Amino acid sequence: MRFAICYASGYNIIDFNISIMKNVNAFEEKAKLIRKWCLVSTTAAGSGHPTSCLSAADLTAVLFDKYFTYDVSNPLNIYNDRFVLSKGHAAPLLYTLFGMCNAYDLNELKTLRKFNSRFEGHPVPKYKYAEAATGSLGQGLSVGSGLALAAKREKLNYTTYVLCGDGELAEGQIWEAANFASYHQLNNLIVMLDINRLAQSGETMFGHHMEQYEHRFRAFNFRVITIDGHNYEEIDQAFEQAHNKNASQQPVAIIAKTIKGKGISFIENKDGWHGKPLKEEDLKKALDELGTINDNARFDLRKPKQMVLPDSAHMDTDVHLDFDNAKTYATREVFGQALEQISKNVPAMYVLDADVKNSTFTEDVLKVNPEHFIECFIAEQNMVSVGAGLSRIGKVPVMATFGAFFTRAADQIRMARVSEANIKFVGSHVGVSIGEDGPSQMALEDISLFGTLPDTVVLQPCDAVSTTALVPRMIEHHGFVYMRTLRPKTKLLYKQDEQFTIGGSKILRQSDDDMLTVAATGITVFEALEAADMLKQENINIRVVDCYSINPVDKQTLLACLDATHTKCIITVEDHFEHGGLGDFVASAIATEGDYVEKMAVTKISQSGKQEELLRDAGIDATAIAAKVKKVVKSNKRVGAAL
Amino acid sequence: MRFAICYASGYNIIDFNISIMKNVNAFEEKAKLIRKWCLVSTTAAGSGHPTSCLSAADLTAVLFDKYFTYDVSNPLNIYNDRFVLSKGHAAPLLYTLFGMCNAYDLNELKTLRKFNSRFEGHPVPKYKYAEAATGSLGQGLSVGSGLALAAKREKLNYTTYVLCGDGELAEGQIWEAANFASYHQLNNLIVMLDINRLAQSGETMFGHHMEQYEHRFRAFNFRVITIDGHNYEEIDQAFEQAHNKNASQQPVAIIAKTIKGKGISFIENKDGWHGKPLKEEDLKKALDELGTINDNARFDLRKPKQMVLPDSAHMDTDVHLDFDNAKTYATREVFGQALEQISKNVPAMYVLDADVKNSTFTEDVLKVNPEHFIECFIAEQNMVSVGAGLSRIGKVPVMATFGAFFTRAADQIRMARVSEANIKFVGSHVGVSIGEDGPSQMALEDISLFGTLPDTVVLQPCDAVSTTALVPRMIEHHGFVYMRTLRPKTKLLYKQDEQFTIGGSKILRQSDDDMLTVAATGITVFEALEAADMLKQENINIRVVDCYSINPVDKQTLLACLDATHTKCIITVEDHFEHGGLGDFVASAIATEGDYVEKMAVTKISQSGKQEELLRDAGIDATAIAAKVKKVVKSNKRVGAAL
Repeated sequence: MRFAICYASGYNIIDFNISIMKNVNAFEEKAKLIRKWCLVSTTAAGSGHPTSCLSAADLTAVLFDKYFTYDVSNPLNIYNDRFVLSKGHAAPLLYTLFGMCNAYDLNELKTLRKFNSRFEGHPVPKYKYAEAATGSLGQGLSVGSGLALAAKREKLNYTTYVLCGDGELAEGQIWEAANFASYHQLNNLIVMLDINRLAQSGETMFGHHMEQYEHRFRAFNFRVITIDGHNYEEIDQAFEQAHNKNASQQPVAIIAKTIKGKGISFIENKDGWHGKPLKEEDLKKALDELGTINDNARFDLRKPKQMVLPDSAHMDTDVHLDFDNAKTYATREVFGQALEQISKNVPAMYVLDADVKNSTFTEDVLKVNPEHFIECFIAEQNMVSVGAGLSRIGKVPVMATFGAFFTRAADQIRMARVSEANIKFVGSHVGVSIGEDGPSQMALEDISLFGTLPDTVVLQPCDAVSTTALVPRMIEHHGFVYMRTLRPKTKLLYKQDEQFTIGGSKILRQSDDDMLTVAATGITVFEALEAADMLKQENINIRVVDCYSINPVDKQTLLACLDATHTKCIITVEDHFEHGGLGDFVASAIATEGDYVEKMAVTKISQSGKQEELLRDAGIDATAIAAKVKKVVKSNKRVGAAL
Repeated sequence: MRFAICYASGYNIIDFNISIMKNVNAFEEKAKLIRKWCLVSTTAAGSGHPTSCLSAADLTAVLFDKYFTYDVSNPLNIYNDRFVLSKGHAAPLLYTLFGMCNAYDLNELKTLRKFNSRFEGHPVPKYKYAEAATGSLGQGLSVGSGLALAAKREKLNYTTYVLCGDGELAEGQIWEAANFASYHQLNNLIVMLDINRLAQSGETMFGHHMEQYEHRFRAFNFRVITIDGHNYEEIDQAFEQAHNKNASQQPVAIIAKTIKGKGISFIENKDGWHGKPLKEEDLKKALDELGTINDNARFDLRKPKQMVLPDSAHMDTDVHLDFDNAKTYATREVFGQALEQISKNVPAMYVLDADVKNSTFTEDVLKVNPEHFIECFIAEQNMVSVGAGLSRIGKVPVMATFGAFFTRAADQIRMARVSEANIKFVGSHVGVSIGEDGPSQMALEDISLFGTLPDTVVLQPCDAVSTTALVPRMIEHHGFVYMRTLRPKTKLLYKQDEQFTIGGSKILRQSDDDMLTVAATGITVFEALEAADMLKQENINIRVVDCYSINPVDKQTLLACLDATHTKCIITVEDHFEHGGLGDFVASAIATEGDYVEKMAVTKISQSGKQEELLRDAGIDATAIAAKVKKVVKSNKRVGAAL
């Protein structure tokens, strides 16, 4: 490649070579310091993946030294280039790179993987320079595609770089993302493939057969540039070429042949060195091998010309829909209509579809606001991670598919939650009530899927009015919200001006003589009401509550119902599997302290640290158990007094 | 293609053409009857996907008429060819094909999608000719790869055919499976791609750009044959070529350009006709268009020469491992050792890995039994569905990865459960106890994921002895079992001869003066024991139970503990998120009938039918609620007597 250019530029060969040499020396100096800190930090931590960092040290040294445009003091500046570390286990590389941009003192890297350090084993959002939490492989290209798509749609001139390992190219999501990126012509997206041959437990599927990767990315319509990932000139030229956005509308794949552990002879290209730090004595040997190191080498990043932070504050979510009391409506249809109205007034909102827009009714948004509609085709994993990318730069992604098919992206949902992404998930066709299509299409584990993740709101409106009211609440809420919508039409239960809030519920039937309470949600609300009518004929009164907010569930109302009814029982009824649904939320909410079951478990996203620190932090260690026991014993009516 | 062969065979042109003509007439006759029944059955059902069936009618007519080898009276005969309908919504096509093999009277297809019919909206196992439940797209190629791999490894001479739609090729799992099939040289696998251009809500990503599919499958090392999917001669020649297994070790992709709704002018190639049956009056028109139909046309399938049913009965699961009381062991390591021993004596067992065999310790099996070890690389979705394929022919797949990464395959797990597959899942690195690697690697929603699926056993041994005892129980159990294993080493709690059963538990501490019970599982068992020691110092006795069987949980023991302790409370402690874990299983198990929360929910895999039939069948309709209310009221101590 270099020669081709030399010949073309004729008599400038000498100048060109001098300038190349200057760069090469600078690149090498930076790469050495990168290698040093990846080794030093992992040895200090006693764990981590130094060899996976070393293979990409040269690639990223060139990127940061010459191309990356970024305002270190404002990681969220929407004019920043984006660097997504898809191979999250190379976290020390990421931490070193930004340390070398003077984002912090490199010495802080000695806290790597320690409790409360921002430098966790794999990147998480408390480290401000991570575009996403990574560590579950094969997700970064999707996140990067989301970032690149937003730039394309909103005419922001940044470039998104994604660093992928070769092991993770076996994940199907990579190919979903590759399709997505080329279909949407993301020529502002550059993926660097660090083909270091070795995965965790052996050689990858293709080892160093570079043509296997070339064929695949070409077939998926990428512009492909193959290089020696340790040859600075080739790397430099590759980025030059990649940045020529006029060349084509294709995204670019720089496929780099690299050596795992490159630079340190005794770990280079050796099996059995994945996820293994150097021992102290080996570290010394390794640093000696690197030779003279300039500890003051730093990247002098180009700054973007403008500084604008994302703004998702503009939230006019008013919805006005009129319904006819004599008619029935499917909540999925009403959701579509509500979203259509909101899409006009919430510029940060993007609506994502996986080829079911005519079933989920997000097609209503496509009709009026195509620039904020993203067709992801039948590739739910990519859709979710694209959403995580959009959220990172302040967008409000709303994605809808059949509730059952969110299970396809359970890992991406999990990781987006670790990323603290602000995503609205809407699952249609929930429960057995969908009818003829059968079990493959029925969402019966979706409440469990979303409800298990800490601080995830789960809503299920059962009629048109509550849907109209709850869609705005969902959009306004910052964080994860999952809404279930129904396939069948249901009649109106509420008056147009009725208020609905996250955490609320509605008592639909009550008397002074209620035997017990039936708490229902979605389609079963109508069954519960019918049951109440049937029982009334037999002079049995029951209370019926519409738990449209499944998590948080309306503890206060349910406890009041428990108090006000003759038998101290709440029957929960839901069109969902028994475990992990509304019933378990209700049981937890109304469990009286010290009586019955007290659950001790992890209630937040955890972090890196030692086992004992993390058990303590989660509140599930011996000390916490002993304290809980004493509290229960003391508060217990029967025995507490005796102590 | 035809002409090329004619030229080559010289003076046999006339004979050859006559024979081709004979075939073509036979194919056409069959295809017409297929079309008729796909239309008739969906119109009778009032729902379904006739246009998706029609595009593949000609392809499958040729396959069944001339190539498919199958013993209709023994669908499980291990010498049968396999036909996997990946595009599950074309179920009426599948039902018609086997009806035309005289597996049943075609008139029974009029029960399509009706409650209790074996002909559900998408194929499920009660339909004996389905190789897997499908309907969540993009999974069939993996199932087929599992079937083909078993044939390859065990030298069975059957061919596996998979019919995929084009919309589902956007799912990443397709490319995981494509990698897997070519890596394992499955030249006994033929995938037919029905490229009918139209997906559910619009055109697919690539429409009729056939080269897009050709490039991709070639890049993934398939032998590619592109044809007009409605030209019988081309189809016939494609199968001829595809069957030449000597041609190469590659799997084959027959890429067929087809027309959605082919054969009926007014629905052919039209958007808006996905998942839509013809109305009665249009059906008449359509059948008229098809012309003369031979209602007696039947496939005369070639029968395999042998009849052998799968045998997974041979189950010598004895494990002998000795442990040193002074040492600690990681349950994941002990699992590997136990599995190694079992693998020698359970010939049906296959062990699957997603490139973490050195962390989950399935590498122990690879070392001694490589022919029953399947490396799936980092592609968990494919791994799970390959397992579903293996299970179909009586194998016992055991698959292990980090517990967190089973979420990557949640949809495949869900569908494998609908398929009634017999799979053992082993998730290592559970909970925050893994330490430094951070949240991306921690399984904290895995109990919820597996526990929500009906009849899934969830186990978590906490020491070496209980692991050794429970691995055999897991292998012997027919159905879904999920076992959690720990990263850190733990000390021995049990004596070598201690017995452990699914549904059991162990009381580790008890006295006559216990205040309450702490129910723990896995790593928290040790925390609970330590808490007991701490409390003992303060003269507070507690009971500690090791709930190594999380589902089913040991209700009897827990109720007895509740009875025997002073405060009526069980504290559950688990290294898992709060919702959907052990705590909820315990709460459900010990909830006293009529007191506190009664959960009504779906407790089994559902089926096709009308909404009201399915709500009734699930026991969550008005009648069931009313009955439950009456039962609770009657049994209630306070008010029951008054009624």
